[in-house]
Amino acid sequence: MRALFHGIIPPVVTPLLSNDALDEAGLSRLIEHMLAGGVHGLFLLGTTGEATSLSYKLREKFVKLACNQIGKRVPVIVGITDTCIEDSLNMASCYKEAGADAVVIAPPYYIPISQSEMMQYLEGLVPQLPLPFFLYNMPGYTKLHMSVETVNFARELGALGIKDSSGDLMYLYTLIDKFKDTPEFSIFTGTEIFIPETIMHGGHGAVAGGANMFPRLFVDYYEAAVRKDFEQISLLRQMVMQIYNTVYNVGKHTSKYTLGTKCALSVMEICNDYAALPLRKFDDEKRARMQQYIQELKEKLVYI
Amino acid sequence: MRALFHGIIPPVVTPLLSNDALDEAGLSRLIEHMLAGGVHGLFLLGTTGEATSLSYKLREKFVKLACNQIGKRVPVIVGITDTCIEDSLNMASCYKEAGADAVVIAPPYYIPISQSEMMQYLEGLVPQLPLPFFLYNMPGYTKLHMSVETVNFARELGALGIKDSSGDLMYLYTLIDKFKDTPEFSIFTGTEIFIPETIMHGGHGAVAGGANMFPRLFVDYYEAAVRKDFEQISLLRQMVMQIYNTVYNVGKHTSKYTLGTKCALSVMEICNDYAALPLRKFDDEKRARMQQYIQELKEKLVYI
Amino acid sequence: MRALFHGIIPPVVTPLLSNDALDEAGLSRLIEHMLAGGVHGLFLLGTTGEATSLSYKLREKFVKLACNQIGKRVPVIVGITDTCIEDSLNMASCYKEAGADAVVIAPPYYIPISQSEMMQYLEGLVPQLPLPFFLYNMPGYTKLHMSVETVNFARELGALGIKDSSGDLMYLYTLIDKFKDTPEFSIFTGTEIFIPETIMHGGHGAVAGGANMFPRLFVDYYEAAVRKDFEQISLLRQMVMQIYNTVYNVGKHTSKYTLGTKCALSVMEICNDYAALPLRKFDDEKRARMQQYIQELKEKLVYI
Amino acid sequence: MRALFHGIIPPVVTPLLSNDALDEAGLSRLIEHMLAGGVHGLFLLGTTGEATSLSYKLREKFVKLACNQIGKRVPVIVGITDTCIEDSLNMASCYKEAGADAVVIAPPYYIPISQSEMMQYLEGLVPQLPLPFFLYNMPGYTKLHMSVETVNFARELGALGIKDSSGDLMYLYTLIDKFKDTPEFSIFTGTEIFIPETIMHGGHGAVAGGANMFPRLFVDYYEAAVRKDFEQISLLRQMVMQIYNTVYNVGKHTSKYTLGTKCALSVMEICNDYAALPLRKFDDEKRARMQQYIQELKEKLVYI
Repeated sequence: MRALFHGIIPPVVTPLLSNDALDEAGLSRLIEHMLAGGVHGLFLLGTTGEATSLSYKLREKFVKLACNQIGKRVPVIVGITDTCIEDSLNMASCYKEAGADAVVIAPPYYIPISQSEMMQYLEGLVPQLPLPFFLYNMPGYTKLHMSVETVNFARELGALGIKDSSGDLMYLYTLIDKFKDTPEFSIFTGTEIFIPETIMHGGHGAVAGGANMFPRLFVDYYEAAVRKDFEQISLLRQMVMQIYNTVYNVGKHTSKYTLGTKCALSVMEICNDYAALPLRKFDDEKRARMQQYIQELKEKLVYI
Repeated sequence: MRALFHGIIPPVVTPLLSNDALDEAGLSRLIEHMLAGGVHGLFLLGTTGEATSLSYKLREKFVKLACNQIGKRVPVIVGITDTCIEDSLNMASCYKEAGADAVVIAPPYYIPISQSEMMQYLEGLVPQLPLPFFLYNMPGYTKLHMSVETVNFARELGALGIKDSSGDLMYLYTLIDKFKDTPEFSIFTGTEIFIPETIMHGGHGAVAGGANMFPRLFVDYYEAAVRKDFEQISLLRQMVMQIYNTVYNVGKHTSKYTLGTKCALSVMEICNDYAALPLRKFDDEKRARMQQYIQELKEKLVYI
Repeated sequence: MRALFHGIIPPVVTPLLSNDALDEAGLSRLIEHMLAGGVHGLFLLGTTGEATSLSYKLREKFVKLACNQIGKRVPVIVGITDTCIEDSLNMASCYKEAGADAVVIAPPYYIPISQSEMMQYLEGLVPQLPLPFFLYNMPGYTKLHMSVETVNFARELGALGIKDSSGDLMYLYTLIDKFKDTPEFSIFTGTEIFIPETIMHGGHGAVAGGANMFPRLFVDYYEAAVRKDFEQISLLRQMVMQIYNTVYNVGKHTSKYTLGTKCALSVMEICNDYAALPLRKFDDEKRARMQQYIQELKEKLVYI
Repeated sequence: MRALFHGIIPPVVTPLLSNDALDEAGLSRLIEHMLAGGVHGLFLLGTTGEATSLSYKLREKFVKLACNQIGKRVPVIVGITDTCIEDSLNMASCYKEAGADAVVIAPPYYIPISQSEMMQYLEGLVPQLPLPFFLYNMPGYTKLHMSVETVNFARELGALGIKDSSGDLMYLYTLIDKFKDTPEFSIFTGTEIFIPETIMHGGHGAVAGGANMFPRLFVDYYEAAVRKDFEQISLLRQMVMQIYNTVYNVGKHTSKYTLGTKCALSVMEICNDYAALPLRKFDDEKRARMQQYIQELKEKLVYI
């Protein structure tokens, strides 16, 4: 039995015109672009979606528009991570109404908390949630690298699965090993290059930011892993590595993944590259480099 | 010319009955307790105030009640740190209306940002603020240890001063040295034990969490430093060290400062010790230890 | 063309009777045990070999005895990492005389150095080396995570390859990608579980501590990866994971890998488990647990 | 009763002509320069002395020459920190013979060890030492920030005191507080700017690298702190801060303290600025800046 949630679930960027205005046309194009590429679900309002930089009102509007556009063609999960439990619950209700299928929770990210404090947080939050939930491990942003015990605690509270963006593959393997007898608990990697590793060891999929730009590439990469088609994996891996070495290598700070993806999508004429504060879109020099990188990537992708 | 903001400005705990209900009577008692102790100002909705764990609505109510109770007897500064610029601006407007004198800004705390991104954030936020602002350096929570250049950038944008909670005294001395020719720029330490060091080297005061419990002790400590009364400093330092070794040493995690202070205030019958999720108040065993610690501290304080 | 150095090269533990006496009989048994298991080379005086805890005299004696026992049946590489360049050079001469085929260099590990300082160190050291050398990336111990540029600099100076013990698989993939056109530059992982990942992406082998205990298992694991035999990989991976969850999980500190391996070898009656200060061998309770773990592992290995 | 060891004890730089040749004339001048400045003792072969980069033979020669030159005019303590207990003991014997009064021990610095492993290390090492010992806390280099319990364990084994170079003043105050009833246990700071803080809170002195260049300044700074002469402290503090902002601010890496000090001493014509690998002396551009800085410092020091 395959897990309900599996495959490539892109963390959707939030196309913006300004800090409080959506690029609605861009959003439509972006969703159709990804669905045409065969993605298995969509994750709204994650780190790539700049969720924490947006007002709740804008987030709600975004989820409604996105869910309308998606029209139940694939499952939709939406981030409700916050530092305030009331706000997480409010978001969960709004997003349920808007059509979300599940919500995503990472540790509250201001106070550095312990594993036991994360457990008591889940104990307080989860029973009040109107939708099923995923866990999201993102230690570089939340300061907590959730232990296997904490993840298991969440699973016992009903978690559908976990997205791990720690970059620590040994940890991901340990999770897969720990939960191998509960295959309905989905394990996703947030590190694109590790998709075959994740799938072949028993994981379920990837929340791959690169699928905003190149959804078909990542779906093919995932399917090659499912089929254990090593030649294809090897071929596609070069493309994924090239994205990593180009698109994600233009900026200098942690923001380079989000800004690189937005700039690439703008160069591809899919949506606007405005980034909410504290980020700012790439300047002209960086954009020019991105244009060349995208050109090169597109030429290669034709032949695959 | 003395800086407008100086002396002991406690980061006020937020007395709660539940995650969304204030302990209003406790709040009144707490404010009167601190004002009776001679504090020079009050800082609402900081880390000790569990700001990020509370809904905006509750925060607004809290600021209104607190400002009413304070009645302009001392200056009031209020934290508006957030990950979303719109929400920071909304809070600033609300708190101005409620009677705040200035707001406090730390780096947005989800995305790990660079110094240059902090500068562009301030550049976007500050011109829209309806009140003067303080900077708040809190690298353990926000992931950014603001450089002297970033602090100077904020000062040029009009910052009234900075509260440094890095615990890095060499950094604080470097700030004092850097800004010695602009004495109207206030430099506060967030590390209680460093009050004499800060004052004697040219700093202006302290945001001292312990002043929630023992305001007079911290005011005396500050004034002894202003007077360069080393015998008194030495005597009071032992008390401050004892708080550190007892009240702040009951819990095991980073939350031990906030939870210890709330528990102590409850033992002292000043306000409720409910803590908002992800925190939880101390259990009975910890509370019993706290009771003994407070008893011992009170006995010593009588003789000072 | 296959790289000269490839396959499973165990980092040999140094069997001791005391801080300055070797367990010579144990050393013979250990070497024969590993060679019987089909290992492709041996790495003496690495981290697992407690090199830095031993006197130069003892190290020299150890290398001589080991090389005699090995008798050129497989290539031998020996660590000369030190904080003093003269001592590294002295060791290199001694070990050449003793029969070593190459030496291994990690960054000098007392002063935290920069990438450029590592390059100038290599520039000063390498031309004086009497033997070819490998690079060893071990950031948790040396404080320097060598950049791809630094590794390339070493390669240009003649490095035969690199052992990466950072645990950062993305970094290892980046190295493999960077050096894919110079396949004579060998890339080894120091993380046992990543052997198939390393081999299938174009790496050359592993410096696997577990091969002290179970050499055949790791050789089979490597060969399955070379053959792309996924069923076998999957089966063997469970065994490797079990070692990780048992043998390496008895101790509590970073030393748990070395102490676990030594204790297991002692339980298997291969060599003594004395560990040089600052380490100390496991106590009886831990040893009893180890006995049970080894029993369980042996039973499983019979059926593979 | 004053502790045997107190005051300003410079960590002496090791004047070199090459990686294995001492600048003997420079060493004589350096020692006379410091003794003329009134220093209370000398610490040979510490971090500033590049001990770990030098061969044991060179270290022994250096200690002999230095002790001869010092001729018992002040106490001499010598670092024996190593990763191998035998080598530490050999050094201790040599240095005793050469005339050292005590040795200095930091945690062995290759394997990341725990507090309990540090205790068992001391338990194994200390009973064999031929001289009394100091502890040296240097977490940035050794990876272990020794707990108060570990320091107390060392004290019970007979430690004469501790030098703390963590830069964490709260920790230093905690040590002073903990050991206030055993004033014969000396507490030294390794952070120059904290000399008055250390002395006025009950500490005993400083291992101040800057006293290689400006011994009288640091002795005056110490004595002003002993006298509680705040005007003088304030004046001298500006000088110390200026050294920090100039001499120590020329280099870019952790090595900037050692290289800055050596370059300054060379500019002052006291000794050669050769630095042992992995370090290299400053280039001409940096040296030119140093020349100007030293000129400015000397002009100011005349008027103090």
